[in-house]
Amino acid sequence: MIEAFQGLQSHFVAVEALMSASLASPEPRVDALINELGAFHGKMLRPALVLLVAETLGDVDIRHQRFGAALEMIHTATLIHDDLIDDADTRRGRPTAHVRFGNTTAVLLGDYFYTHAFHLVAEMGLPEVTSRLTMTTNVVCRGELHQQCAARDVGLSEEEYSQIIYAKTAALTELAGELGALTGNPEQRRAAAAYGMACGMAFQIVDDCLDFTGDPNKVGKTLSTDIERGRLTLPLIRMLKRAPAHKRPALESRMVSVSTPEEVAAFRAEVLASGALQDALGTARSQVQAAQASLAALPDGPARQRLWALAEFILARDF
Amino acid sequence: MIEAFQGLQSHFVAVEALMSASLASPEPRVDALINELGAFHGKMLRPALVLLVAETLGDVDIRHQRFGAALEMIHTATLIHDDLIDDADTRRGRPTAHVRFGNTTAVLLGDYFYTHAFHLVAEMGLPEVTSRLTMTTNVVCRGELHQQCAARDVGLSEEEYSQIIYAKTAALTELAGELGALTGNPEQRRAAAAYGMACGMAFQIVDDCLDFTGDPNKVGKTLSTDIERGRLTLPLIRMLKRAPAHKRPALESRMVSVSTPEEVAAFRAEVLASGALQDALGTARSQVQAAQASLAALPDGPARQRLWALAEFILARDF
Repeated sequence: MIEAFQGLQSHFVAVEALMSASLASPEPRVDALINELGAFHGKMLRPALVLLVAETLGDVDIRHQRFGAALEMIHTATLIHDDLIDDADTRRGRPTAHVRFGNTTAVLLGDYFYTHAFHLVAEMGLPEVTSRLTMTTNVVCRGELHQQCAARDVGLSEEEYSQIIYAKTAALTELAGELGALTGNPEQRRAAAAYGMACGMAFQIVDDCLDFTGDPNKVGKTLSTDIERGRLTLPLIRMLKRAPAHKRPALESRMVSVSTPEEVAAFRAEVLASGALQDALGTARSQVQAAQASLAALPDGPARQRLWALAEFILARDF
Repeated sequence: MIEAFQGLQSHFVAVEALMSASLASPEPRVDALINELGAFHGKMLRPALVLLVAETLGDVDIRHQRFGAALEMIHTATLIHDDLIDDADTRRGRPTAHVRFGNTTAVLLGDYFYTHAFHLVAEMGLPEVTSRLTMTTNVVCRGELHQQCAARDVGLSEEEYSQIIYAKTAALTELAGELGALTGNPEQRRAAAAYGMACGMAFQIVDDCLDFTGDPNKVGKTLSTDIERGRLTLPLIRMLKRAPAHKRPALESRMVSVSTPEEVAAFRAEVLASGALQDALGTARSQVQAAQASLAALPDGPARQRLWALAEFILARDF
C-alpha cells in the first residue's frame, strides 16, 4: 500500500464495490466472466486523487467514490486494450486479460469497461460532469491513437511527446483533481486540476523510464514494450539530444528497428549508460514540484500533506 | 439507396457532417488518420429509424440528427471491433479498418468512435437521454460478450439466442425508435421503441441467414464468419431442431468444429439443403409484422409508410 493512500482504505472498499456492482451482469455467462476476472483495475491512483482532493475540502461523499470508480474503470479499459496491443503478458503481477481470456474477449471487455464507466457517471444526472468525462475520454483515445500514429518517427519532438502523454495519461488525472474539487471554488478547482495534470505528466514520464530500468518482478508488468513498438519516449528523445551530431543518424535508425530480445537488451543497456534517464527524471521532478506548488490553493491539513506525499511517491516509485 | 430512405437525403448529409465534425481531431496526425478513414459507417439504419419516427411526429430537428449520428458511431465502433475479431476483410465492399490500418489502430479507432459518440450526446445536456444511451451501450457490449461466451455451445437455446441478438443489435435500434419519438407521448415512445426493437431482431436474424446464403459481392462483407466462430445462430438452432434425434450428436459436433474452407463450404450447403433458413426467415417475418403492427400508434402519413416499407426491406434484403 502506498503511504499516501493510507486513510483511504474504506473509500477504496466503496470504490471497488461500486466497480463490481456496475460491472455485474444480469446475464449469467457474462457475469461468470466478470467474476472470473475478479477485482481487475490499476493502481487506484485516479480514485485516490479524487478522494484526497475532496478530503482537503472536507466533504468526501458517494459522488466522489463514483467518480473515482468511473475514472478507474476508464483507465482499466485502456489497460486491457493496451496490454492486448502491446502483447504484454503481465500487469500488477497477474496475467493480462487477453492472456487469460483470449484476444476477442479482451477487445470486448475493454469496450464493456468503457461503457459501464460512462453509465456510472451518466446515471448521476449531472450533465456538466458527464460531458467533461466524455470530452476527457475523447482526449485519452486521441492520445492513444496519436502515440500509435507517431510510432517509429525519430523526428518526434519533445513538445509532441508532451502532447501525447498529456492526452493519454494526464488529461484523466487532471479530471480526477477537478472532480475531487467539485464543491470547491473556481480557484480550488483549477488548482486541483493542475495538481492532477502535473501528477499525470510525472507519472507517465516515470513509467516511460521504468520501461527501461524497471525490475519486471517489482513493476509487475511486461517491460521494454516501448522499444519494441518504436515509441519515442522522453528518455530516447533526450538520448538523441545528447548524442553527438555525427552519431545521431545511426542511433535514430537503431532506435526504431531493434526487434530481437538480444537487440532490445543491448539497446536498453546503451540507454542506461547514456544518462538520458536521469535527464528525463529531472523533467518528472519539475512536474512533481509544479503539482506540489498547486496545492497552495487548497486548505492545509492531513489530506493536503498526503497529496504532497503522493506527488513525491510518483517520482520515487520503482513499481 | 434503400427506397424507404428516400427523402432522408438531406438529413443523412447533416448526420454525416455531424459524425465528421465530431471525429475530427485538433491533432494533425490523428486528423490525417480520420480523414484517410473517410466516411466510415454502417448502412445508416439507426439514423433512418430516428429520423423517420421523428417525421411521423412532424418535427425532425438537429437533436434527431445528433442522436442518429451518435447511434451510427456506436454501431460503427462495434463494427470496427467485430471485423477485427472476426478477421473479416471487407465491409460494405471496402477493406475493413484493421486491414487498412492494422490491428492496433483498429482497437484504438473503435474506442475513439465509442467515446466521441457518447460525447456528441452528453454535450447536449439532456441527462436522461445520455443515461439511456450509456445504459443501452452497456447492453450492446454485454450482448457482444454474451455471444463470445456462448460460442461453440451446441446447447444454446433459441431463447438465449434471442437474448443475445436483442442485446447486440435490437437494443440500439429500440433506442433509435425511442429517441425518434422523444417529443411524442408515452404511448408513441413505447410504440416507436417496439418498432425499432422488432426491426433490429428481424435485421439480425436476416443477417445470420445471409451469413450462409449471401453473395459476398452483394452483401459487401466477409461471410461464413459465424460458422468459423462456432456461433449457434438461428438457422443452426433450427437445423438441429429439424434433425432426427439419432443424427443430432454428429451434427452438433460438426457444427462447432468445421474449420477448413472446404469443410465450411460443405457444411454451408448442408444448412441450405435443410430448410432451416426458410424456417429462420419465418421468425424474421413475424418480427417484421410485429414492427409494422407497432406503427398503428404513430400518426399516419408518408413517414409512417416509409417505416412500413423499411421493415419490409429488412426482410427482403440480399445485401
